[in-house]
Amino acid sequence: MRAVDLIQKKKEGIKHTQEEIKFLVENYTSGNIEDYQMSAWLMAVCFKGLDDEETAYLTQAFIDSGDILDFSSISNCVADKHSTGGVGDKVTLTLIPILAQLGVYTAKLSGRGLGFTGGTIDKLESIPNFKTELSNEEFFKQIEDIKVAISSQSPNLTPADGKIYALRDVTATVDNKSLICASVVSKKIASGANSIVLDVKYGSGAFLKTPQEATELGNLMIKTGKLLNRNIDVVISSMEQPLGYAIGNSLEVIEAIEFLKGNYKEDLYEITLELAVKTLLNCNKASNYNDAKIMIDEVIKNGKALEKFKEIIIHQGGNSNVVNDYSLFEVGKNKAEIKATEDGYISNLIALEVAHAAKLLGAGRDKKSDSIDFGAGIILNKKIGDKIAKDEIIMELYFNDIDESKINNAIKIAQQSFEISKTKISKTKLIY
Amino acid sequence: MRAVDLIQKKKEGIKHTQEEIKFLVENYTSGNIEDYQMSAWLMAVCFKGLDDEETAYLTQAFIDSGDILDFSSISNCVADKHSTGGVGDKVTLTLIPILAQLGVYTAKLSGRGLGFTGGTIDKLESIPNFKTELSNEEFFKQIEDIKVAISSQSPNLTPADGKIYALRDVTATVDNKSLICASVVSKKIASGANSIVLDVKYGSGAFLKTPQEATELGNLMIKTGKLLNRNIDVVISSMEQPLGYAIGNSLEVIEAIEFLKGNYKEDLYEITLELAVKTLLNCNKASNYNDAKIMIDEVIKNGKALEKFKEIIIHQGGNSNVVNDYSLFEVGKNKAEIKATEDGYISNLIALEVAHAAKLLGAGRDKKSDSIDFGAGIILNKKIGDKIAKDEIIMELYFNDIDESKINNAIKIAQQSFEISKTKISKTKLIY
Repeated sequence: MRAVDLIQKKKEGIKHTQEEIKFLVENYTSGNIEDYQMSAWLMAVCFKGLDDEETAYLTQAFIDSGDILDFSSISNCVADKHSTGGVGDKVTLTLIPILAQLGVYTAKLSGRGLGFTGGTIDKLESIPNFKTELSNEEFFKQIEDIKVAISSQSPNLTPADGKIYALRDVTATVDNKSLICASVVSKKIASGANSIVLDVKYGSGAFLKTPQEATELGNLMIKTGKLLNRNIDVVISSMEQPLGYAIGNSLEVIEAIEFLKGNYKEDLYEITLELAVKTLLNCNKASNYNDAKIMIDEVIKNGKALEKFKEIIIHQGGNSNVVNDYSLFEVGKNKAEIKATEDGYISNLIALEVAHAAKLLGAGRDKKSDSIDFGAGIILNKKIGDKIAKDEIIMELYFNDIDESKINNAIKIAQQSFEISKTKISKTKLIY
Repeated sequence: MRAVDLIQKKKEGIKHTQEEIKFLVENYTSGNIEDYQMSAWLMAVCFKGLDDEETAYLTQAFIDSGDILDFSSISNCVADKHSTGGVGDKVTLTLIPILAQLGVYTAKLSGRGLGFTGGTIDKLESIPNFKTELSNEEFFKQIEDIKVAISSQSPNLTPADGKIYALRDVTATVDNKSLICASVVSKKIASGANSIVLDVKYGSGAFLKTPQEATELGNLMIKTGKLLNRNIDVVISSMEQPLGYAIGNSLEVIEAIEFLKGNYKEDLYEITLELAVKTLLNCNKASNYNDAKIMIDEVIKNGKALEKFKEIIIHQGGNSNVVNDYSLFEVGKNKAEIKATEDGYISNLIALEVAHAAKLLGAGRDKKSDSIDFGAGIILNKKIGDKIAKDEIIMELYFNDIDESKINNAIKIAQQSFEISKTKISKTKLIY
């Protein structure tokens, strides 16, 4: 078998065998196939596609390229969730304590953020002393002890995907559904989950622009799960405006804590609920939607989910007093308020623009080596559909001492991130 | 400008500006753009194409990447020819002495062969002591002195094309008309020609399979010439069966010498004539087709074209006695005859199969570092349409002491390279 022949085959739109995809992935990972051949193949895939089976072969080849975690000695139902990424998405933080409290084992490996805002690991690191790099032993032991642990990704899970993802990023081959699916699903399966819920986002603030595209990707992920004998459930949700009211690392953790205290924005609750219900049903912890919802509401109401969150913080070395004393978080010393210039209703609140402003304030990074200012970010006082009066505050920008031109730029972008309409606007539907 | 954005642009089928193509080619040549980005772009080009202007931009960028030879002080019409490659194609050897004898300056840079049979340079090296690596000074001086020189390609002509061609070869991105056009035309223009004739071949023995494909490529080359102010003429010709009767290096040079003595197969004459006429007209050496043909026939008949060939050999250090004493060539010591198994007419003579057999005998190479046996090759006694009797010899295989299994394999392939029909077959049309 020769790489050039396999590139030609895909270029002609011919279906690969499992052996062929295994050959490509194995040899690329080991360095026997060069970057320039893989990138040509990836581009051919962007034009000719992979079918459901080929996508499953690719997913399996990614899984087989590295370590595979195995929690079968702990539980026969280990859950994981993934979001395709959105602005203000702190659902991992709200979901996981609820699931663990309700008896679902959750082995969560998360990443740092690149681009506009931090990833889950960055957010957790805004809790003083919270340790995000657990050894395999620590990770396993904590899951045994308290049913849940969150750690940054082990470098040896799906190394093939890591190498290919880096290549896709610089060769304009990111936006293929099969490649996205294999990347996401392989990582979840390799990290030991057999019940996986995926939040596939669409809209101006997401990678996929329409619900149709998100549904196609979601369906492909479900089929890939079936072909690889894993239970994959998908929620398709809108990412037109940011999720919840906080954007930025400390601010999002505070919002998650408030959530667990029962103080939440409807949108964050809606998605957390949907993902939690699906997981409880998959793991046979509830027999129907209503029972599951009652159980979830109960552990929020009685504070037990918050207790579980404190337990996670304590087990991972963090200061759990943050739960009751937000001054222990770094929050930007300076504040700028963005006010409405007229009466009306918020008719648009562009997620990407809000994120862009947050990043300029210091909440995100461009390169892995860039540092993040945990205290930087934005609090939204209004969301799409909300009534607003002239001079009322729409959002607050938090930041520390940074370059004034950056602040001015962030303010300018924030001011352009929303629109106000004179007529009443109906709230956008969140879950498709 | 970023390479990844230009890849994305072509992936979306958007037309590049000249600056963008220049940016890609310049930075790839200098190493600032990586192989994996160029190969992704090349694959996107295979799917989305380049239009006429983009093709001319690419051609110009290739030209500008290296040296450009300038013969304007010698003549205002310097000719060159190129064939897209075929089996038994020794037209450079038959054409160039005729042109030079008729007053056309010809600066010929040729390559070695990869694949089934040798290139023009390999063929010439079968003439004892013939020197194919001329310095720039030697090349210029010989053209001034005798109007023609043939040299192996200077490494610093169109280095961008060299680097990109090597990449195309291993990434299944060879077969795009714009990429082929830019590669061929840039080399001809950089080597100083302003009157270029191109023999674009189609058929089972050629890269392009149909006359339509060859015509498309030919038209693109003509348009590229117009956009870059060069006179490009194209002949579209069939490569179903080998051209002429010899395949293999020494054997082809002997056939070319016989041609210049007036002993030729019709097909070799037809193509040589067509290319010679077009060049004479372009360079205003003849005013119409008939006059040009008379001039060409005359220099063959009176032996002056052969004299010019001897002059070339002498100027390039070779032994010109070969012209009258073929025993000075290396010709395979051993011979195997392929005979007809029945009476009839040759109805098929597959160029690629004959070439494959010749290569097994030692006439070609796989890698640049492989050596060629100049004496190995095949003589065809019959061609498509010829009548044949049972046990009559169709072809003769020449070879030296090589692995017996290779010989047997070559014989087997040679035996399968033709078909015999009971009914009379009309000769195939050579020029489309």
